[in-house]
Amino acid sequence: MAASAGQKNHVVGIDLGGTKILSAVVDREGNVLSRAKKKTKAQRTSDEILLRLEECSREAIEASGVPASEIAAVGIGSPGPLDPITGCILETPNLNLSNAPIAPYLIEKLAMPVFLDNDVNVGTFGEFTYGAAKGKQHVIGIFLGTGVGGGVILNGEPFHGASLNAGELGHTKIVAYGDKCGCGDRGCLEAYASKTAMIKRIKKRISKGKKSILTDLTNGDWTKLTSSVFVKAIEANDKITVNEIHRASKYTGVAVGSLMNILSPEMVVIGGGLVEALEAQIMPDIRYHAERNCFPIMSEKCEIVPAMLGDDAGILGAAAIAWKRLESA
Amino acid sequence: MAASAGQKNHVVGIDLGGTKILSAVVDREGNVLSRAKKKTKAQRTSDEILLRLEECSREAIEASGVPASEIAAVGIGSPGPLDPITGCILETPNLNLSNAPIAPYLIEKLAMPVFLDNDVNVGTFGEFTYGAAKGKQHVIGIFLGTGVGGGVILNGEPFHGASLNAGELGHTKIVAYGDKCGCGDRGCLEAYASKTAMIKRIKKRISKGKKSILTDLTNGDWTKLTSSVFVKAIEANDKITVNEIHRASKYTGVAVGSLMNILSPEMVVIGGGLVEALEAQIMPDIRYHAERNCFPIMSEKCEIVPAMLGDDAGILGAAAIAWKRLESA
Repeated sequence: MAASAGQKNHVVGIDLGGTKILSAVVDREGNVLSRAKKKTKAQRTSDEILLRLEECSREAIEASGVPASEIAAVGIGSPGPLDPITGCILETPNLNLSNAPIAPYLIEKLAMPVFLDNDVNVGTFGEFTYGAAKGKQHVIGIFLGTGVGGGVILNGEPFHGASLNAGELGHTKIVAYGDKCGCGDRGCLEAYASKTAMIKRIKKRISKGKKSILTDLTNGDWTKLTSSVFVKAIEANDKITVNEIHRASKYTGVAVGSLMNILSPEMVVIGGGLVEALEAQIMPDIRYHAERNCFPIMSEKCEIVPAMLGDDAGILGAAAIAWKRLESA
Repeated sequence: MAASAGQKNHVVGIDLGGTKILSAVVDREGNVLSRAKKKTKAQRTSDEILLRLEECSREAIEASGVPASEIAAVGIGSPGPLDPITGCILETPNLNLSNAPIAPYLIEKLAMPVFLDNDVNVGTFGEFTYGAAKGKQHVIGIFLGTGVGGGVILNGEPFHGASLNAGELGHTKIVAYGDKCGCGDRGCLEAYASKTAMIKRIKKRISKGKKSILTDLTNGDWTKLTSSVFVKAIEANDKITVNEIHRASKYTGVAVGSLMNILSPEMVVIGGGLVEALEAQIMPDIRYHAERNCFPIMSEKCEIVPAMLGDDAGILGAAAIAWKRLESA
């Protein structure tokens, strides 16, 4: 694949999620010219999902006014595990895309280079290129959401390791053989700090007779427990919610401190909807527990900051990965 | 500093420890031509320790028959934290060498390039260059001893991070706010798998009335609890010892699995006197618990092996670091 950007000044960045596909045409400085959005319909056939990806790319390109022939490449962030070299998804729990040749398919359809990487690597690389971690060399990203994702940038490059899937920071063990995690193992950060884990504990406490405003706010439908519902509960000083947010932040801080002892990053970027909504509650706790769990020499050299790009981390990170890989191709 | 190896085919590798200084003249293939050894006398003045380092280097050079002018460089592995760029030790609990300009001193005295790095980074780099991890790109080393040390090699290079002191793998948190560690924090691997931690637990159990052959084998003097004493107790199927070795191996395995999820190394090398003496007891436990604590995609790409270089890891690793840094200088 001839992958020179040449004089072309735009790429497509795609954020492929379990619910929606977001795409955007982005220039070298990270400015978004146009956007498109489609439902993923994740349980349809893999052919249908690939077609929706293609259509979502074309829509963004058309809306941008930039001729397709002037687009340098497509970058895609997707849940993994995946192979960033062949551009194939290997497997992913929430998408019907096992062994799906995403990049080869789009290369054929769109006639341009297509690069695939793990969604959280991509989010971290977005923060590194256009957001909170601009200009840093060694950056760790931790994204708290339904699960807990992570990304690792070392020496200015996303680090992939031997399996090409390094950076599963949500599955850093923080309590040996502790709480059961969605991955099947025990004691992972995700089993303490994900929304899934928090909801599980809250439900259990309520079922044991504890009172919480969350019962009213969600009408007992826990799928309605979004970040903004958490905010309302915190504003109402709901004890169960306050405790859970503290607990998730504490364990995240322990993991961050541990990762600082291991990798001594210059910056740890914490992202995800809950952090955006409750930055003032969450970040001080994370910083406090990180410092208590690493050597002063590590914390002196490291800032722990909230992510800056919000919902655009995916498309901007995917665009950044496209630029980066065009450069090194 | 002009640091070209040119036609020179030998370096000095120095292993600076709290008890002894080992030095050796080593060729490019890792063959040892000569050795020297001195007590560190770690509580003497820093000037005296520097002089002993110098003398130990000179003795190895003289014994090798290679003229000093034909030695390309000196590499030193030392406990840290230290600055591998300026070649100064910043601080080290067991040596009276705070803010000691080790490399600048020896450069002046020996008139050749001198390179300093963390002892466990050096041990890992020795295994990478001449031992178990030859030819690998991403390698983690964990050394179980009085403490627990670690080293990280990524893309074929020792990884130092922002503080230049990354790789404190003994202070990976495996039980959030768990057992107290010698570093002052809690829940570190070292608080579960170091000889210090094991002895502390064994003493406590014996003080509570449990019987152990270790009481006789050490005559109650726990400084005599060397690896060979552990071996005798294991051979006698001493229950307390068997349990402690299992427990230390289990927690080491959890940390290894966690590190595999984070960094996806090709190889994890486990070293230290206890592992050498009890490989058959320790390695299977470590492998079992590592696999239970990481994703299959990580373990499929990773071997967990015992170190190969034994007591020579320090001098050979220091020699390897010298060759490496001459190359990139």
